[in-house]
Amino acid sequence: MRSRRGGAAVSETPELFSEFGFIAGLRQACRPRDAMVDLGIGDDCAVLALGGGRCLLLTTDMLIDRVHFRLGTLSPFELGMKALAVNLSDIAAMGGRPVCWLLAAGLTPGLPADFLAELKRGLFSCAERYGADLVGGDTVIARADLCLSLTVVGESERERLLLRSGAREGDVVFLGRPTGESAAGLRVVLGEAAGVSEETRRILRRAHLEPEPQLELGRLLAQEGLSRAAIDVSDGLLQDLGHICEESGLGAEIDEAAVPLSEPLRRFAAATGGSALDLALSGGEDYALLFCVPPESAGRCRERCRERLGLEVYPIGRMCARKGLWLRSGTGLREVAPRGYDAFREGLTEETPAEADRG
Amino acid sequence: MRSRRGGAAVSETPELFSEFGFIAGLRQACRPRDAMVDLGIGDDCAVLALGGGRCLLLTTDMLIDRVHFRLGTLSPFELGMKALAVNLSDIAAMGGRPVCWLLAAGLTPGLPADFLAELKRGLFSCAERYGADLVGGDTVIARADLCLSLTVVGESERERLLLRSGAREGDVVFLGRPTGESAAGLRVVLGEAAGVSEETRRILRRAHLEPEPQLELGRLLAQEGLSRAAIDVSDGLLQDLGHICEESGLGAEIDEAAVPLSEPLRRFAAATGGSALDLALSGGEDYALLFCVPPESAGRCRERCRERLGLEVYPIGRMCARKGLWLRSGTGLREVAPRGYDAFREGLTEETPAEADRG
Repeated sequence: MRSRRGGAAVSETPELFSEFGFIAGLRQACRPRDAMVDLGIGDDCAVLALGGGRCLLLTTDMLIDRVHFRLGTLSPFELGMKALAVNLSDIAAMGGRPVCWLLAAGLTPGLPADFLAELKRGLFSCAERYGADLVGGDTVIARADLCLSLTVVGESERERLLLRSGAREGDVVFLGRPTGESAAGLRVVLGEAAGVSEETRRILRRAHLEPEPQLELGRLLAQEGLSRAAIDVSDGLLQDLGHICEESGLGAEIDEAAVPLSEPLRRFAAATGGSALDLALSGGEDYALLFCVPPESAGRCRERCRERLGLEVYPIGRMCARKGLWLRSGTGLREVAPRGYDAFREGLTEETPAEADRG
Repeated sequence: MRSRRGGAAVSETPELFSEFGFIAGLRQACRPRDAMVDLGIGDDCAVLALGGGRCLLLTTDMLIDRVHFRLGTLSPFELGMKALAVNLSDIAAMGGRPVCWLLAAGLTPGLPADFLAELKRGLFSCAERYGADLVGGDTVIARADLCLSLTVVGESERERLLLRSGAREGDVVFLGRPTGESAAGLRVVLGEAAGVSEETRRILRRAHLEPEPQLELGRLLAQEGLSRAAIDVSDGLLQDLGHICEESGLGAEIDEAAVPLSEPLRRFAAATGGSALDLALSGGEDYALLFCVPPESAGRCRERCRERLGLEVYPIGRMCARKGLWLRSGTGLREVAPRGYDAFREGLTEETPAEADRG
């Protein structure tokens, strides 16, 4: 249960989400009682025990026009791809493999047929690529804003699950790929990237609109027992690391110099006068996996990722007993707030007549 | 995959739902390939094989303000109850037991805290009553209309499932309780029930706003092997029977005189000058089970429902080889169209400023 991507809006109505605690309240109100329910609210997916050590993973997300995206700034193909990809990323974060998905779509009457065809093509391209069958859903009319709600089902082995609560003191914190590009890509999409080259804009835009769920990485970590704790970076590296800290009852120390900064991100930061590191630490929607590896397995983990996936993973810090998030730089160690993505989303959620957005 | 309850809007944009065939297109585009997927789009739930003869049921529905309900005409408690109940009804229609559910909620910023508390109370009252654990979800901001998308997970035995495709020629068609009250209740809710007594209005309103999923009936039919085919009446008796006919490759003959008409429905019809039979045949959202029983088991089925559940079930006709829906009355046999609920919903979907609806 999370409120991410409702980003800016959260600060708009704090009493609704925070003080009233719709989310926290639900979590408390619903301690699972059914024998099949192994894990309820609180991780990337819920877990149902299937017997024989197998388990089923369940995750759901809702995306609404003018809140999570803006029609006209992305193609319907991109919207379809992303809507499914972000849900698949939750399966990746648990170390599972995707099985199937359900689609609830609220479609506004004015949408042209080719828009729907492209939306469908985007959804199915993603489903095809990652091997998830559409098995059901509900298609209804929405009067104001296009709304997509997806539920994805995955499968894994109970003993191999990557859990937010699975980190141990001393674990090395790894990042599955550099972060920050998606947040920069959102700026590109919103037209806030003056001075950034066409080529860099293209790369960043794509990072934002076609994020790849790291399913193969999640599977490798789970199947080879390399990690017991992971999350996908949706709110921002620090904020999501904060979730692992909270659920594992630990703190984390990040080495600033070890945080990978991609070339396109550096170029974006140089051109716009921002900080690439800030974007990497607090930008959201990267859907990179952030995972914890016991120190004795850290070397082998990097090797196996290279060998099996041709993937470079980045050790960026360690889990520690001292609560809080700590950033180590040349000048020492300082505590940082688990800053999230919210600030970056304000451009998306300002009030704009819906009609002006229709591409 | 269905478009019910997007009712009136379907006729508004036929090209979107029908000609373009978003739904039919999805069904064709996604023949399941994953070994776990036993049944994809086309029944009340998707079915995942768990091994050992067990299976998991999955269903999702989306409800949007000003399309499926109208804030101000129902309490947030009733909205919560109904949103979960209609999904549980899909589990009932397969003969399953509920396990858990996920909630994706798009909440508009203006909603007061007590509205949300009541919405939550409605959802959890229903979950408690029928034994389903909330295991996850997503809570986001919606700019225009409150939107709830629920996914419910159930469990059953693969060989005991009640399927739309499970009817056989000669099967007796049963109704789990009288229909039509919900459609009459919608008229009450919309203020179109002049001359109807307060007591009758109360009963009909409740039938519309607090429909009970027939989970115990579905379980009994499945566990005792009394039926192999069922659906819940969401679109209307004739239309939903049409779905069984279509999936089973049969027709059905209904005996007009056998269709049960409740006293409140008769009183409503008498007061408003409408036809109780029309409401019973074409009204929707009753969430009564409509099921097919082999003729040799029909007597035992009625007995078991009385003994085990204290429930009267109603034989209303038979499945026949001749395709189509046939209505037998004093004057003979005539073919009828699988008329649905759409016409009744027009009052709900006319354009109204959202603010005026907030109760």
